[in-house]
Amino acid sequence: MFYNFQMKNLVNILLAYINKSLKRSSKVLDFHYPHQLKEGLEGFSLELPDQPDNLEQLLVDCRDTLKYGVKTGHPRFFNQLSTGLDIIGLAGEWLTSTANTNMFTYEISPVFILMEEVVLRKMHSIIGWPEEDGDGIFCPGGTMSNLYSVLLARFHLFPVVKTHGMSAIPRLALFTSAHVHNLIIFTQINTTFWFLSVRGKMISSELNSSIETAKSKGLVPFYVNATAGTTVYGAFDPLNEIADICKHHGLWMHVDAAWGGGLLLSNKHRVKLQGIERAHSVTWNPHKMMGVPLQCSTILVKKKGLLQECNQLCAEYLFQPDKHYDVSYDTGDKSIQCGRHVDVFKLWLMWKAKGSEGFEAQINHCLENAEYLYYKLKRRSDFQLVFKGKPEHSNVCFWYLPKRLQSILPSPERDRELHMVAPKIKTKMMEEGFTMIGYQPLEDKVNFFRCVFSNPATQREDVDFLIDEIVRLGCEL
Amino acid sequence: MFYNFQMKNLVNILLAYINKSLKRSSKVLDFHYPHQLKEGLEGFSLELPDQPDNLEQLLVDCRDTLKYGVKTGHPRFFNQLSTGLDIIGLAGEWLTSTANTNMFTYEISPVFILMEEVVLRKMHSIIGWPEEDGDGIFCPGGTMSNLYSVLLARFHLFPVVKTHGMSAIPRLALFTSAHVHNLIIFTQINTTFWFLSVRGKMISSELNSSIETAKSKGLVPFYVNATAGTTVYGAFDPLNEIADICKHHGLWMHVDAAWGGGLLLSNKHRVKLQGIERAHSVTWNPHKMMGVPLQCSTILVKKKGLLQECNQLCAEYLFQPDKHYDVSYDTGDKSIQCGRHVDVFKLWLMWKAKGSEGFEAQINHCLENAEYLYYKLKRRSDFQLVFKGKPEHSNVCFWYLPKRLQSILPSPERDRELHMVAPKIKTKMMEEGFTMIGYQPLEDKVNFFRCVFSNPATQREDVDFLIDEIVRLGCEL
Repeated sequence: MFYNFQMKNLVNILLAYINKSLKRSSKVLDFHYPHQLKEGLEGFSLELPDQPDNLEQLLVDCRDTLKYGVKTGHPRFFNQLSTGLDIIGLAGEWLTSTANTNMFTYEISPVFILMEEVVLRKMHSIIGWPEEDGDGIFCPGGTMSNLYSVLLARFHLFPVVKTHGMSAIPRLALFTSAHVHNLIIFTQINTTFWFLSVRGKMISSELNSSIETAKSKGLVPFYVNATAGTTVYGAFDPLNEIADICKHHGLWMHVDAAWGGGLLLSNKHRVKLQGIERAHSVTWNPHKMMGVPLQCSTILVKKKGLLQECNQLCAEYLFQPDKHYDVSYDTGDKSIQCGRHVDVFKLWLMWKAKGSEGFEAQINHCLENAEYLYYKLKRRSDFQLVFKGKPEHSNVCFWYLPKRLQSILPSPERDRELHMVAPKIKTKMMEEGFTMIGYQPLEDKVNFFRCVFSNPATQREDVDFLIDEIVRLGCEL
Repeated sequence: MFYNFQMKNLVNILLAYINKSLKRSSKVLDFHYPHQLKEGLEGFSLELPDQPDNLEQLLVDCRDTLKYGVKTGHPRFFNQLSTGLDIIGLAGEWLTSTANTNMFTYEISPVFILMEEVVLRKMHSIIGWPEEDGDGIFCPGGTMSNLYSVLLARFHLFPVVKTHGMSAIPRLALFTSAHVHNLIIFTQINTTFWFLSVRGKMISSELNSSIETAKSKGLVPFYVNATAGTTVYGAFDPLNEIADICKHHGLWMHVDAAWGGGLLLSNKHRVKLQGIERAHSVTWNPHKMMGVPLQCSTILVKKKGLLQECNQLCAEYLFQPDKHYDVSYDTGDKSIQCGRHVDVFKLWLMWKAKGSEGFEAQINHCLENAEYLYYKLKRRSDFQLVFKGKPEHSNVCFWYLPKRLQSILPSPERDRELHMVAPKIKTKMMEEGFTMIGYQPLEDKVNFFRCVFSNPATQREDVDFLIDEIVRLGCEL
């Protein structure tokens, strides 16, 4: 069949790309500025035609799309929390897109719906919730997961909000640390924020007094977001202390473990999330620390049935109650979405392929890489760690000091200079394309590099390479 | 390489599945009840192991996952708005998952970011917005697109909501028709609904008086959602009339064209969306009428810059302003998500492969199928159309009357009997597996079938088959 032939050609292009992505001798990226790509490089035109292009041209376009992209699976790509290219996860995603269905009902997704149940139950048990508890749903990313948790908490406290809206309930107060990730949407649906942290960690005594302050101002505290693994520092909030406070004040405790959740699979590292079993809801993104291809994110809820109560519309035109199978398997009423992409299968398949033990080994390996980098940098005078202590997660934050800054004592002038070092190195790094790492300022700290490890293909030699590359590109700055 | 070999085996399984999906002689599904699948059929176990399974077993699992699923690409699958299996779209999705990146920044998605810009600009011009206007973003499904539109409208009217929350602004009123799709989340973030429709269409004179009523009650009307293609009837609201009213009252006009947007590509059918160019925002899901694999949904906004103003957090730890390229290409601040899946590439590739003319032909074909079914049913006494007029979209709604009901005059008793016909036929239909069509009650109408056409592989013989199959399964009921 004609199409089979074309698809096999495409598969050869994709497999060649995968092999290249995994090779250290390949570049991570071949950088071009937006205007260069827009002008069309060697016949690669982005414009959309009225008449069809021929299929040979499409294959060339596919090759070019990959060529000018960034190899996020490369062992020397350290730029984001989601890295790596798990071949089994990829196989899962290819199957998912071939099945091309929707997590709407058991009717059209019987196998995936059951897999979702199995995987969520496994995640509940790993969190440590009793077997009779636990509900949840896969949704498109951590922001959505966190949004679910706020909707649930609000509905749990004030069910009237569902029928009568925000004007029927008092002004609520939500509490979270300053280093919070993925909370963007909250700014628009809630009323109050309280920021309290040191080194990216929530200070529980301050949380308590802030709750009292909010009450004294006539606000109704209802929700605390504890973070397990912040984006930049990889910090973990003290979950047990926060759980005590939530219990005392009767507040909903949510744990955003989008980034840190993976550590629950490690016997060595799960201690950092102690107390998570006391949360009412948890965000956990397997597409981060577990290396599952994007998108794969969950909201896990302790209390059964609440998701459905909160979100269902009883729209019979969508979900017919008179079907011949047990319609409790139709997940559409739990979801705020109508169409919902199948995100579970790749994770299910990876779990089959690795076993829980495989995930544990892979996560331990990533944290070992972080520790290796930490100890290397600690010994050097041309690098300065942002924090003295060993990293809790796989985030390592540091400044590089070019020769001329090494001898200057810390001062506002030195900081101004230092602030420009990381962007300059990053520019050269992207133009040369051998590795990629992110940088950012945070609070009073000028631009520093943040290295994160979530790709199990990364080895110590890649960490060494990163350091050498930063020095090579930056020493004369 | 070992993995290449495994991936090629998987590809063979997937290609065999695709070929089977397209064959009329294959079943659409091999139905099993949840308990059957959970107990494990012929060694297909859903449970997750601690130790790895072997790779041969994984391939068997992949084959079984497809075997027990539903072939949504089959020409006789009429169950959902999203059907079909476009092979080029699929190729696009395989490449996307191989690239495994995030629409966060130009830095990590240079090509996809530019493709998004090109495709959105094309969609703006098809809507009919002036070239200097137009902004937008791909997001995970129509509910999210509609959510964006409400956030934008609210922010546009009351920018203070971003920093001071809902309690700082008056009680708002939102207007929409009763047959609205994907509006679930709105119930939780807004205050008031007004439902007005006949045959699924908003009545504009009633809209006007409802706005006056809302004002007299002290509410602030701010947003009208017009639907272009309702879920069940495929009805189109009168967009120009609604635009006049919105203009008169100074309201934000949103058009939910999730389902109907595809018709804009047809010179014959785009007249049904006349006035859409006057909207402030539009939801348009290419994963519905354009046959793009799930998920592929857009929110299109007339006013440039508003998305960013509304949603940006100026989080330097996420988006560094001191990068070496033009950071206006970083889309992260437009989005309420942090991670954002690449949904544009498959659409871009399909557009290259078909051209705009190819989409037009495919959409016209789907509407021709609907008309063919409509005229066939109109001539028969054992079927009854829910509405007399020709369908506007590809939705055809009808009852089947088994022999014993054909001779009974309409009455509450007959309705009670008729209500049970569609579920009974659907049960048999799924157990036998040769075709699939959905049913639902709506308002005062008892369970009726809704046939929708969005799969270009569907031909008249498949429509004939559907009718015969309903008669075969239902005539003795």
